[in-house]
Parts: sequence; structure tokens; C-alpha cells
Amino acid sequence: MYTVTVRDHMMIAHSLRGEVFGPAQRLHGATYVVDAAFSGPELGPDGILLDIGAATELLRGVLGGLTYRNLDDEPDLAGANTTTEVLARTVADRLAAGAAALGPATRLVVTLHESHVAWASYERSL
Amino acid sequence: MYTVTVRDHMMIAHSLRGEVFGPAQRLHGATYVVDAAFSGPELGPDGILLDIGAATELLRGVLGGLTYRNLDDEPDLAGANTTTEVLARTVADRLAAGAAALGPATRLVVTLHESHVAWASYERSL
Amino acid sequence: MYTVTVRDHMMIAHSLRGEVFGPAQRLHGATYVVDAAFSGPELGPDGILLDIGAATELLRGVLGGLTYRNLDDEPDLAGANTTTEVLARTVADRLAAGAAALGPATRLVVTLHESHVAWASYERSL
Amino acid sequence: MYTVTVRDHMMIAHSLRGEVFGPAQRLHGATYVVDAAFSGPELGPDGILLDIGAATELLRGVLGGLTYRNLDDEPDLAGANTTTEVLARTVADRLAAGAAALGPATRLVVTLHESHVAWASYERSL
Amino acid sequence: MYTVTVRDHMMIAHSLRGEVFGPAQRLHGATYVVDAAFSGPELGPDGILLDIGAATELLRGVLGGLTYRNLDDEPDLAGANTTTEVLARTVADRLAAGAAALGPATRLVVTLHESHVAWASYERSL
Amino acid sequence: MYTVTVRDHMMIAHSLRGEVFGPAQRLHGATYVVDAAFSGPELGPDGILLDIGAATELLRGVLGGLTYRNLDDEPDLAGANTTTEVLARTVADRLAAGAAALGPATRLVVTLHESHVAWASYERSL
Repeated sequence: MYTVTVRDHMMIAHSLRGEVFGPAQRLHGATYVVDAAFSGPELGPDGILLDIGAATELLRGVLGGLTYRNLDDEPDLAGANTTTEVLARTVADRLAAGAAALGPATRLVVTLHESHVAWASYERSL
Repeated sequence: MYTVTVRDHMMIAHSLRGEVFGPAQRLHGATYVVDAAFSGPELGPDGILLDIGAATELLRGVLGGLTYRNLDDEPDLAGANTTTEVLARTVADRLAAGAAALGPATRLVVTLHESHVAWASYERSL
Repeated sequence: MYTVTVRDHMMIAHSLRGEVFGPAQRLHGATYVVDAAFSGPELGPDGILLDIGAATELLRGVLGGLTYRNLDDEPDLAGANTTTEVLARTVADRLAAGAAALGPATRLVVTLHESHVAWASYERSL
Repeated sequence: MYTVTVRDHMMIAHSLRGEVFGPAQRLHGATYVVDAAFSGPELGPDGILLDIGAATELLRGVLGGLTYRNLDDEPDLAGANTTTEVLARTVADRLAAGAAALGPATRLVVTLHESHVAWASYERSL
Repeated sequence: MYTVTVRDHMMIAHSLRGEVFGPAQRLHGATYVVDAAFSGPELGPDGILLDIGAATELLRGVLGGLTYRNLDDEPDLAGANTTTEVLARTVADRLAAGAAALGPATRLVVTLHESHVAWASYERSL
Repeated sequence: MYTVTVRDHMMIAHSLRGEVFGPAQRLHGATYVVDAAFSGPELGPDGILLDIGAATELLRGVLGGLTYRNLDDEPDLAGANTTTEVLARTVADRLAAGAAALGPATRLVVTLHESHVAWASYERSL
């Protein structure tokens, strides 16, 4: 099994709904350093699972639709509690829509690092 | 599958028994930077697998029972060779006892980083 | 010359005023991983420049006054453009007010890491 | 399941064949920071999956056969497109040949970090 | 004193001349993760020392003139021993030519990380 | 000004004397990831401040005299409170004795990272 991972980041504002979140119920924000890890059992004819440059562009495009925004005001996320877990899934699902063009990857894990001491991932098939 | 990871550390003294350990048979010590990664297939109603703050508290409590100690003198570890692998399991098993209260996680991986060039993990179900 | 550094983080929302900021003029947010580095030429009688635990508490207190907030609404920051540089100075100045009680440090550098590819510092005397 | 990981690095020149690689078709180079992660379900009698020192030596030996070289001129790699994925497999296969002597590990994941924003892995059984 | 740092990378081939370099006299290569740190005593009217986006573009441009190349064949570097120190100075001098347009920075430190265990810097005035 | 930095680590046990240390008065331990940064205004004839390989060997030798030991029992450190600051100076002073043979460096900063959230440095001339 091969895995290729690329990293980028986004910087967003949001608030979280639920008493469990304590002070994070207030409007605040986060930098998410985002790792997108694509996996598959075989390489393509060029000896790659997918092109790192193309994967980087795909990730940049998906994060470009989220960064520098207040997620509380995003119509696409209306009703969602934009926790790190939910955002990891959001990024993964959006990447999956474009991943088929990249190459023969079959699994994707997206990890959002919200600080040096906490991060969350979502894993799905492609 | 979702995974949430939190990080903390402990600083312990110990010695290891067995010729394979060479100079590490002498009393020495380590900082272990500890990552506790909880996984599960579904999020709870608040959109989280578990509360990062509560997971951090749980980890701090478990590490508080080990840090700033000479593990050679700990009754709970009597007879154990406190290798990085064994300590990863010790931390994982102690976390597992408290993890049920955190939320619907089903797997746990605990990683102990003993330096910038070596680390060890133990994975178990919850 | 001795230097002791401790690390913590804060998670804030804000917007920046000025065309140079492009999309960062919108309300967005950041995690700042914050390093506070205290320096001085001599150690105190216990062989420390300052107590790492006390420095960690001081930093936590200062960041506690900023984290989980929308800085656009903070009266203490009214009129300020809360760039990474300005916030580095804000944190440094607030730490300086409490640093005298820590020990014989004479210089302070505060670094705010806004992502894995950008950070800013402010250095001042104590 | 236990996992033990050790880290080292190699510094090589190479060129890649295929239009997808763009400017990387030119002769250039890379530092690969290499993580070798050995996994297995049980520890040996000393309380270790394998000796970290011995694993470090094994990894150093394998990387010693690749580092400070132009991989385009290596007979062992003739005909191969030495992408990060292919090199991850090359290192993994060479480590596997020596891993049996280390202890009861059954899986191996080798990760090559080519920069702070891209890395690739190959996983195989032992 | 304020400092703003941005990070990018380049991937080059080269060989080094001199017996001290041992096996690095052979053609090999490196990824250099490059940090450019601009410092100055005062912020501009927008509350920044320089625009992080503009600094990132400047660094990308300078590294674009070096990456994916065999430095042994670069006319601009003919006769130079392209050690990490020399390349740190090369990058710093090229950045300095463009830094005046960025803002009121007066010092520049460029650091090239050649691996997880070695890096080199060059500091100059602007 | 040029700076070359190399990294290694040591793993020691010790206890600290003084009420300020709280639980760290007990026998415990630490991994110190150690950075030795040598600086000087000019490069030697080979285009280097010093040989990274030789600096790495020098650092390994100095750390070899401290690692895998209980520092409370070391005659060379008798009477010293082996805080991170004191150990940074100890390593720096021992490196200085061997640095003259490396090349034209004039300053040395030694940093000991005791965890992911705390580190200390000592700077001296050579």
C-alpha cells in the first residue's frame, strides 16, 4: 500500500453550539494545518500514486473555498457545527470529488491540526 | 472513521533489564511526548467524537500518575521492564478505563515519542 | 546569556483593515502557537533563570485574556490592527508586566506562529 | 498492536521521467527524512518489539547504500523512475531483508519526507 | 524589534569540492526548507513590518531560480562551493535585492534546513 | 554572520534541589534534544564555517559523557543543580573546548529541548 500526503493550511472564524464547548461557544478562530493523505495499492505507469503538484493544487482549491471566512456565515455549512471533526470530513468529501482525476488512489485521510497539541482526522474511501 | 488526538508529556527516570539495552541498563531517564488518538465511526450529537478539552484532562490525569517519578520504584509497575512499548501500553490501558465517559470512540492509539528520532505506539480497542 | 522558552497557544477571530490584507480583511481567525523566550545574563540561586512552571502559568494567564474571542470586539484592542506583529507585541507587553516576579530575566522575545509557513516575533527589554 | 519507529535521512540527486513531473524532469535532488515503522502484535521477552538501537543501525545501513549518490547512475535502480513512492518501497524492501533478525515485527511502513509539505509511504508485511 | 518569518523549500542537486566533504564530493542533492526572517524596529502604518503574502511571493521567486536544478551547472554559481552556508548567503543576497519594496525591515536572516538534524543561516543588513 | 546548527539528544535521570521545583525534586528524568549552533563572521577556504559531520561528532562525544546516566551520581556535576539552564551551559562549555579544531566560529548557542513546550539555551563566545 502506497500513501502520498500533501500539506497546506486555512485560517477561519467560527463559533460552536453546545455547552460542552465552553468558551469555544464564543466567536473565535483557528488556523488548521491540513494534511491530505491519499492511499492505494498500485502505482500508475509513471511510478507515482498521484502527482504531488496536482494533489497540492487540488488541496489548495478546496481550502481556498473555506479560508479567510467566518464559517458561521457560509451557506454551504448552514446548520453544521463546524468542529474539527466535521471540517475534516468537509475537506475530505470535497477532495474526493476531485481525486478521481489525480490517479489510482482508493483511500483518503484528511487531518486538521488545530494547534501543537490537538488534531483530528476523517478517513473515507475514494 | 474519525480520529481525535491530544498531546501532553511526562518526564521519568528508569532502568531497563536485559543485555540488549546496553547503557540503558543504567538508571537514566526520558521525556515522553505522548499522543493519545481516539477513533470511532460516528460523531455524537454535538458533532464531535469526544471533547478535546475532556480528552486533554483525561490524558493529563493518567500522565500525572507517572511523571516526575523513578519508575523503578513504582509499585504498580513492579516486575515490568518499562520500555517505551510497555509504557505506551500502560498509558493506553489507563486511558481506556476513563475513555468510555468521553464519547463513542472505539479504538485508541497511544504514541510515546522518546526523542526526535524514535517513538513507539500501542493500539487497542475501547 | 541564558534563555528559557515556554510554549502555549490561543485561538482567535479577527479582521484586518487595509487593502494590503486582501481576503484577510474579511472576518476570519487563527491559532497562534506562542513561544515566550526570557533571557538574562545570570541564573538565580536555584540554578534557574526562572521557573518553567511559573513562566508557563504566566503565559497561560496572558493568553487566557485573548483566546476564544473575536478581537474586533475587545475594548483593550479597540483601534488596533491586530496583525501577528501587533499581537506579538501585545502578548510581550502583558507578559512583561508579570515577568519581574519570575526572576532575573532582562529580555523577552514573543513569537506567534500563525501557520507552519509563517510566524512573527516582538523583542523587548524587561 | 505495537509499533516502533526510528528516523534517519539520506541526500540524493536524481531526475524523473515523464511529462507529469514538469521541472522535476531536470536533474535535481532531495533530502529524504526517513521513518521506518515496525509493527507486531506481541512483544519479545525483554518487553520490546525490537531494539531501537538495532533498528536504527539497520536503517542507517540501508540508507548508506543510497545517500550521497546520483540515483540516475545506480545500477540497482536502472530503469526505475525514482519517485518518492518508488524509493519508499525500495527502502522498505531492503529493510525487510534485515528485519527478521530484529524481532517479532510483522508489518513495516516506510515514510519518506521530501519537504515540510509533502511525504510518501509504502507499507508491506514482514 | 519585530521579526516576520516565512518558509518555503527548494530541491537541488550539487557536488562539493574539498576532501573535508567525504562522500558529499559525489553528485548528490538536498531539499532545503528555507526560512526568511525579516526584522526591523518599527511597523508601517498598516501595523505590519511587511506583508506576509508579499514576502512569501518574494521568497518563492528567489527559490524558483534555484530549485529543480543541478547547481554544478548554474552559470551564476560557477566557481562557488555550494555549501549550505554559501547557499544561505546566496538566497539572502537575492532576497535583499527585492526586500526594499516590502517595507521597513533592516535585517534579514535566511536559514536553510538540510535535514532534521542540521541547518545553516546567514544574517545581513537590508 | 553565518551560523551552523547540528542536533542530537541525551536521556538522563536527575533530581532538583529547591522548593520551587515541586514534584521535580523527586528523582525523575528527561530526554534533552540538543541543538549546538556555531556562529562566525567568515567562512573558511572550503566555503564552510565548520564541517557539519565534524560538529555532529563533537556533539555526540560531549553528549556521550552525559547520556544514560543519573546525573545525581556524576562526580563532574557534584554540587550542581542540574537544571536545563545549567546543563545547557555544561554542554556549551564542553563543546567550546573542542570547537577550536572545527573552524573559525566565534559564538556558540546550545539549546536543550526538554519537551514540546519548554526549552532553554546558553550562549557564549568561543
